[in-house]
Amino acid sequence: MRSVDINCDMGESFGNFKIGNDEAVFPHITSCNIACGMHAGDPYHIEKTINMALEHNVQIGAHPGYPDLQGFGRRVLPIAKAELSSYIKYQISALQGMVKSAGGKLAYVKPHGALYNEIAKNETVARTVYSAIESIDPNLKIMGLAGSHVQQILDEMGLDYIPEAFADRYYEVDGKLRSRTLPNAVIQDPEVAASQVLSITVNNQTLSSGGQEVALKARSFCIHGDNPAAVNILTAIDKKLSASNIQKKAF
Amino acid sequence: MRSVDINCDMGESFGNFKIGNDEAVFPHITSCNIACGMHAGDPYHIEKTINMALEHNVQIGAHPGYPDLQGFGRRVLPIAKAELSSYIKYQISALQGMVKSAGGKLAYVKPHGALYNEIAKNETVARTVYSAIESIDPNLKIMGLAGSHVQQILDEMGLDYIPEAFADRYYEVDGKLRSRTLPNAVIQDPEVAASQVLSITVNNQTLSSGGQEVALKARSFCIHGDNPAAVNILTAIDKKLSASNIQKKAF
Amino acid sequence: MRSVDINCDMGESFGNFKIGNDEAVFPHITSCNIACGMHAGDPYHIEKTINMALEHNVQIGAHPGYPDLQGFGRRVLPIAKAELSSYIKYQISALQGMVKSAGGKLAYVKPHGALYNEIAKNETVARTVYSAIESIDPNLKIMGLAGSHVQQILDEMGLDYIPEAFADRYYEVDGKLRSRTLPNAVIQDPEVAASQVLSITVNNQTLSSGGQEVALKARSFCIHGDNPAAVNILTAIDKKLSASNIQKKAF
Amino acid sequence: MRSVDINCDMGESFGNFKIGNDEAVFPHITSCNIACGMHAGDPYHIEKTINMALEHNVQIGAHPGYPDLQGFGRRVLPIAKAELSSYIKYQISALQGMVKSAGGKLAYVKPHGALYNEIAKNETVARTVYSAIESIDPNLKIMGLAGSHVQQILDEMGLDYIPEAFADRYYEVDGKLRSRTLPNAVIQDPEVAASQVLSITVNNQTLSSGGQEVALKARSFCIHGDNPAAVNILTAIDKKLSASNIQKKAF
Repeated sequence: MRSVDINCDMGESFGNFKIGNDEAVFPHITSCNIACGMHAGDPYHIEKTINMALEHNVQIGAHPGYPDLQGFGRRVLPIAKAELSSYIKYQISALQGMVKSAGGKLAYVKPHGALYNEIAKNETVARTVYSAIESIDPNLKIMGLAGSHVQQILDEMGLDYIPEAFADRYYEVDGKLRSRTLPNAVIQDPEVAASQVLSITVNNQTLSSGGQEVALKARSFCIHGDNPAAVNILTAIDKKLSASNIQKKAF
Repeated sequence: MRSVDINCDMGESFGNFKIGNDEAVFPHITSCNIACGMHAGDPYHIEKTINMALEHNVQIGAHPGYPDLQGFGRRVLPIAKAELSSYIKYQISALQGMVKSAGGKLAYVKPHGALYNEIAKNETVARTVYSAIESIDPNLKIMGLAGSHVQQILDEMGLDYIPEAFADRYYEVDGKLRSRTLPNAVIQDPEVAASQVLSITVNNQTLSSGGQEVALKARSFCIHGDNPAAVNILTAIDKKLSASNIQKKAF
Repeated sequence: MRSVDINCDMGESFGNFKIGNDEAVFPHITSCNIACGMHAGDPYHIEKTINMALEHNVQIGAHPGYPDLQGFGRRVLPIAKAELSSYIKYQISALQGMVKSAGGKLAYVKPHGALYNEIAKNETVARTVYSAIESIDPNLKIMGLAGSHVQQILDEMGLDYIPEAFADRYYEVDGKLRSRTLPNAVIQDPEVAASQVLSITVNNQTLSSGGQEVALKARSFCIHGDNPAAVNILTAIDKKLSASNIQKKAF
Repeated sequence: MRSVDINCDMGESFGNFKIGNDEAVFPHITSCNIACGMHAGDPYHIEKTINMALEHNVQIGAHPGYPDLQGFGRRVLPIAKAELSSYIKYQISALQGMVKSAGGKLAYVKPHGALYNEIAKNETVARTVYSAIESIDPNLKIMGLAGSHVQQILDEMGLDYIPEAFADRYYEVDGKLRSRTLPNAVIQDPEVAASQVLSITVNNQTLSSGGQEVALKARSFCIHGDNPAAVNILTAIDKKLSASNIQKKAF
């Protein structure tokens, strides 16, 4: 039986500043990327989120980012390699220890925001981050943009790669994400988003915003939790997968 | 052969803001309390400090504090128990993971500043922090103020207690630290500081600022690294211990 | 014709972390307390909020707090008088300059959260904060808890006091706010909240949660913008005031 | 009688993190650039520094930077124009109000670090920052890199430009600062630094590290306060100016 993993960023609240709708999203996902306190999240919300994940039997990943609360990790910080490496080690260690103390196990790492995008574009940044992850725990799986140079780098390094696609974003014919600066970048219709998940899972392809076939392999699908339509999209995916007899299950 | 441990707070620099004189102090100490990034320290300086500790064969402890960079952890933050617990777990996990990835082993925890003092006064705070430490790793030793209620609490909890005395502070006849708000609280003379270390180590007693005997047992002695006299005090201790054939060695 | 001022905390968003529903609230209020960047708010959101206030012809006040983003200014920070004074001067100056550069005029100051409460309880804190405000601009009016010692202090200092009541909180018979730790502290029903505003405005009294008369004078009424019922309460107040031919107008 | 202005960055300490040697430097300078709390400085140290400046009769400038305490304002933050503008307005307002409340007058603005360099390279950033300054107070003078495009931009905008040279840095033949990545970028010898100040003041020229003449006009000279040789350089400049009968005086 085929299976598919659905992941979402979680635990991004900071003190009195709330982000996301974690309670509503947890029942629908199989993996969660928990913020590590540098671009979002604080230890209290991190622990709360870890406990929610364990209650919902959701696989836990670390979601480290640039140390930039003000910019929410969405700005590329010009920091030296050694510094970036330390920040990654710190964040993953913090999360891994807290997950372990709660009785769970950290399964993977998915870098956040601007760091995620830099990794998909810049090999030096990718290798710096991946080496830092490996130095903390070589068994951690690493989630990255499907169709990018990430796969080759991780293969060379002998690390386990989880290619990720986005349920609610259109792809270009060459397999790249359609830029948000262009029209028709975001999929608004839950049915279309759910179809994309199904199509990539079953046929390794989807349709571009222009209706052309795009080849794409993915082992996990990301849902944006701060999207107001998140729960509707998740519900549509649930129905579509169930109708096709595909199991939702952590990779 | 008798031995004594000398500890110092290390890794407190933050970005361009430098604190302490770690390079000069490391050759003289046997244990270092490394800041965990919440009241001082940042991941880059933490990693640098871990590496220095390993080079100097100095035992590593985590030095967590209230999350208060502005107040350097010297202000009591009114935070709820659950929050404090999460902050402790986060900090110790971060340090433990980074030490392990550098090839070392985190040996102990010494809470910092206002948190250290609160623990010595307030049983609820003490139990909250100690439970958090235990949940991360029950084998971590815990350093605390010699002569305080800490020993009893840790004994009850079955955790390993390292009583600590201060080389450069006078004690009152009842074994309490002489308050800094009184005259003659700080020992300025390196010889007197070194004598205190020797006397507590050999005879389990020292002299108060008024010259009276004070009973005190300690397994580690703290040196304040931001004290300009720190290196002179450390050198005086080295001579005194060597002359008495006492070994400097991590507990 | 009688008039009444309705104020609300605004501009509390920080980077990607959104707080409140400023767009929906602005049309209903006559004064806004704008966060100053220390417990909430950042310069970008502050400027945006100033511009919204000017568009809606809403009077602008500074809303300084303890420097504590993590605690949202709701924790009493143990800081020295001189430090607290500097932090108040800094925040008010920042806001006053930005309001002036946008073509407006800063009219008043309302301290935030834990600082507001400390001022109502602790004369030293009150005088420290008020002296700091006066040193920036002695013409700034100062909003404070109706029925507290604040009036006497400000009268002695020759500063202009704006007593404030809360539309959505019950009062005790002695005129004190009913503690949130007790049941029936918050008024849920928009009609009851609106009646309280009307009754205090017209009769200088309201009803306690137990139904007893409470004497209370106020020149401004606070609405909590993060209360989901805020807009309903504001609409109910609008109707009630209009029906009684009372004008909504900045003090 | 000719005169020359000597400026230095001041007030960069943050809480317990001390930077610079302000007490020793103040007696030697005529203008001080006070940090505004975003890349360095906090309200308490800002106020203390303002008071020291007034005691020493030293002219006060605002020293705003990117909001980046961790990077000390030395990293280019990728922030939108509108955001940058708000951050500049906020910082200058805060400082101006505090200076005024202490009985002084803010005379000028000198952007800090990475922002200073960006302004000297990027016209959009320069115009954004200068417009923000102008909106707070069009009478504020603006310090910028001598020999850069800054002069033309400020002339067009009708703002008052203070070209600045560095006492302790070598210049290239084209009038640009010699990059710190090259050897012989920094002038170590106090006599050479003092000669450069004198030569630019009297002859509008200096010598490159290779000994060639460099044309350069400046109305103020910057000394780096965190340079351990700062006081020696300042003393050497004092002697040299005095011997040439040139007065040290704020522009």
